[in-house]
Amino acid sequence: MSITLDQAEKAIQAAKAKAADINTLMNIAIVDAGANLIAFAHMDNAWLGSIDIAQRKARTARYFDMPTGELGKLSQPGGSLYNIEHSNGGLITFPGGLPIKDASGTVIGAIGVSGSTVENDHTVAQAGVDALA
Amino acid sequence: MSITLDQAEKAIQAAKAKAADINTLMNIAIVDAGANLIAFAHMDNAWLGSIDIAQRKARTARYFDMPTGELGKLSQPGGSLYNIEHSNGGLITFPGGLPIKDASGTVIGAIGVSGSTVENDHTVAQAGVDALA
Amino acid sequence: MSITLDQAEKAIQAAKAKAADINTLMNIAIVDAGANLIAFAHMDNAWLGSIDIAQRKARTARYFDMPTGELGKLSQPGGSLYNIEHSNGGLITFPGGLPIKDASGTVIGAIGVSGSTVENDHTVAQAGVDALA
Amino acid sequence: MSITLDQAEKAIQAAKAKAADINTLMNIAIVDAGANLIAFAHMDNAWLGSIDIAQRKARTARYFDMPTGELGKLSQPGGSLYNIEHSNGGLITFPGGLPIKDASGTVIGAIGVSGSTVENDHTVAQAGVDALA
Repeated sequence: MSITLDQAEKAIQAAKAKAADINTLMNIAIVDAGANLIAFAHMDNAWLGSIDIAQRKARTARYFDMPTGELGKLSQPGGSLYNIEHSNGGLITFPGGLPIKDASGTVIGAIGVSGSTVENDHTVAQAGVDALA
Repeated sequence: MSITLDQAEKAIQAAKAKAADINTLMNIAIVDAGANLIAFAHMDNAWLGSIDIAQRKARTARYFDMPTGELGKLSQPGGSLYNIEHSNGGLITFPGGLPIKDASGTVIGAIGVSGSTVENDHTVAQAGVDALA
Repeated sequence: MSITLDQAEKAIQAAKAKAADINTLMNIAIVDAGANLIAFAHMDNAWLGSIDIAQRKARTARYFDMPTGELGKLSQPGGSLYNIEHSNGGLITFPGGLPIKDASGTVIGAIGVSGSTVENDHTVAQAGVDALA
Repeated sequence: MSITLDQAEKAIQAAKAKAADINTLMNIAIVDAGANLIAFAHMDNAWLGSIDIAQRKARTARYFDMPTGELGKLSQPGGSLYNIEHSNGGLITFPGGLPIKDASGTVIGAIGVSGSTVENDHTVAQAGVDALA
């Protein structure tokens, strides 16, 4: 099973609402279980460089079925996955990417958010995930 | 001036409705005046390969401010723009990409649609453009 | 649903047997429903350049859920999909790639074969598909 | 001399068996003496992002005829090969890639494994190497 467009749009709407709540401008990407782009939204005047980063965060979260920030803890100098970012055409391993699971716990896709601090990016991504819970 | 996310989402909704009307499954991409991705939607079970093509059509339409199919007439063997597809990281020059203009005729972005015949792709892209007229 | 590794290996074994039958040396790739590589085999002394082509054929067949050769008929000069090969990081649109479907007709992956004439490539790919029928 | 497909498949089967033994889901790649992909297997539900990493580990191990983890010790900040990962289209320098040698000690290819901790990846890669000893 993979995320549907209806689900993806619902997650994006929730993420946009949270972004507005906390006074940020975000880029929000949703990928399916195959790591393919399903839906995307760039809020007006959000960073242009985050269009790409949001998509990479979503793919990274699905590639390894974990929050991107968890991977980033392991990819630091001296860490067990140092420089893993060089794989898969370029990963992003700081927070803002989260897997999306169905009720049974199976990963059906992922969300990636970029546009503010990584704490804010993570908060907005979590709002997207929560909208489908 | 560039297309807003509200406008982009309105165009995508109109394109999705037209795609459903003509019984097709489409990928729909909107780029802004800077050729950056603003919004995207992959209808459930639409071709995966068209995720990339829809985005390339949108960028191509904005890069040259003309319908992608017009460019394709010039890029054929012996044509004046033969193999222009090699530029800009890869263009798509068959129909399905259209510039989006404001009331004054200024290009504010573009739409790219892929998932069916090029005639259907063009029809759905036009529906997106018309929604903002 | 996506193809399993067991199924992929069964398809590769059948393809290898057919390749030997017709006295060819092939590269054989299997991708899943998300177009991700599941299994691959390079027969000894097969063309090195076909390692990449086999994988691109498999992805292309899944991207558009059709035999690669069908796409190639449309991508010729003057055709409706001229130069579609520039999308998705590079497509291969001559024969040798085929979708793989389950009993209900849902595409669960694809096979790509390269190493000989396109007729032989297609024959060997078909043997892989048939092994799962 | 280079590894044969029969040898590569034998190494993959041994690696898969070891992966199952230690309760992990792995991606396993074998390259030949020319660093070209010979065989690959993605175990069902293994990380999608490791499809690429397993192949990079195998290539990296053959590029420098040493375990990937040895290279990773030298590529750290301040190290003699700092950021060598930028070369060759992207290297992976944490454990899980090992050269494969023939009886005379000549490198005939390499194995790359990705899907779990780097310790587990290395253990499974070693099982592949041992199967050919």
